[in-house]
Amino acid sequence: MVSAAFAKEQGYEIVALTVDYNQRHKIELQSANQIANKIGVIEHITLPLDLSKFGGSALTDDIDVPKTGVANDIPVTYVPARNLIFLSLTLGLAEARGARDIFIGVNALDYSGYPDCRPEFIQGFERLADLATKAGDQGSGFTICAPLQHMTKSDIVKEAQRLDIDPALSWSCYDPVEGNVHCGLCDSCRLRQKGFEEAGIADPTVYAVRT
Amino acid sequence: MVSAAFAKEQGYEIVALTVDYNQRHKIELQSANQIANKIGVIEHITLPLDLSKFGGSALTDDIDVPKTGVANDIPVTYVPARNLIFLSLTLGLAEARGARDIFIGVNALDYSGYPDCRPEFIQGFERLADLATKAGDQGSGFTICAPLQHMTKSDIVKEAQRLDIDPALSWSCYDPVEGNVHCGLCDSCRLRQKGFEEAGIADPTVYAVRT
Repeated sequence: MVSAAFAKEQGYEIVALTVDYNQRHKIELQSANQIANKIGVIEHITLPLDLSKFGGSALTDDIDVPKTGVANDIPVTYVPARNLIFLSLTLGLAEARGARDIFIGVNALDYSGYPDCRPEFIQGFERLADLATKAGDQGSGFTICAPLQHMTKSDIVKEAQRLDIDPALSWSCYDPVEGNVHCGLCDSCRLRQKGFEEAGIADPTVYAVRT
Repeated sequence: MVSAAFAKEQGYEIVALTVDYNQRHKIELQSANQIANKIGVIEHITLPLDLSKFGGSALTDDIDVPKTGVANDIPVTYVPARNLIFLSLTLGLAEARGARDIFIGVNALDYSGYPDCRPEFIQGFERLADLATKAGDQGSGFTICAPLQHMTKSDIVKEAQRLDIDPALSWSCYDPVEGNVHCGLCDSCRLRQKGFEEAGIADPTVYAVRT
């Protein structure tokens, strides 16, 4: 949400891609629609891609989402190669539309240690994008923009306020209660709450439990 | 087909992935099923992924498939970022299954100039795979095997014969006539015919037109 609003502020026309990967927190698809409408995009594609056929993650498989606090290792909510799959799809869409700048909202500070949020990964993808495509081969290369990469969650909450977008539009929780309430206990809910607290900005999110 | 049979000969257990990307030549999905059954795989996933939502290619969009002969530039049958998308999905599946060797049948000699068939692209992907994944991050890296990369189509036909797999099982045509006959005129049909001719092996393919 914040990276899309940031791109809009920079003057970009936005083609938005949302992947319905059969995630446990399907509610985020509704959230993505609301955000796309609010920010104003020229096209928004929701692409079904059933990664539960691969499994291997608490987000797509019958594995419990950890609720005891953010640990130091890569958690079971990691979805194998997910951000690479997302970026590859976005690259294909960008090339088909004649776009050359790809925005992704990954964050490498207050996060869960996912390898595919690291700056080295994003830089590596940018290099590969030009080898992988006709546009890149013909000298019209791609840029991967990750404006939230080096921000804390607190910075991101403040940036949302500066950009005047309602933080209640965004969805974080991996394991919603009754399908549409933030659980408050998963890593993503914990980092969200921490972000609002540290920013000193009121958190409009409804959590089943506050930590 | 040939790279899967080659992997099998090398002693690998095979998890096969076929992508139903709403390609014009959907008949290749049947072909993939027959090949997987014939070679013997432990799992075969056919994954729907509607790349016609992106368009920008004669294989997924309402653009004519060229029929006048293989040219020197990248043709309109190029699907934006397709092999990167395919490899990324395969990487996710491989990581979820605990596999570390990924086979892909790309070819860089008798081909249509697609950027995502080049050795530099395959090598770049192999490097990125380790940055993109938990397994790679933890030191258990991936290998991308492209055994047909430096073969001519003629070599590939001979390799199929050596491996004792029926070449009639494979599908090449981009624009099948009546849905299930090789057109004989698209680049892929032309390269297929050339391969059999140069190998001196009888071509069992039924073409609507022979060039």
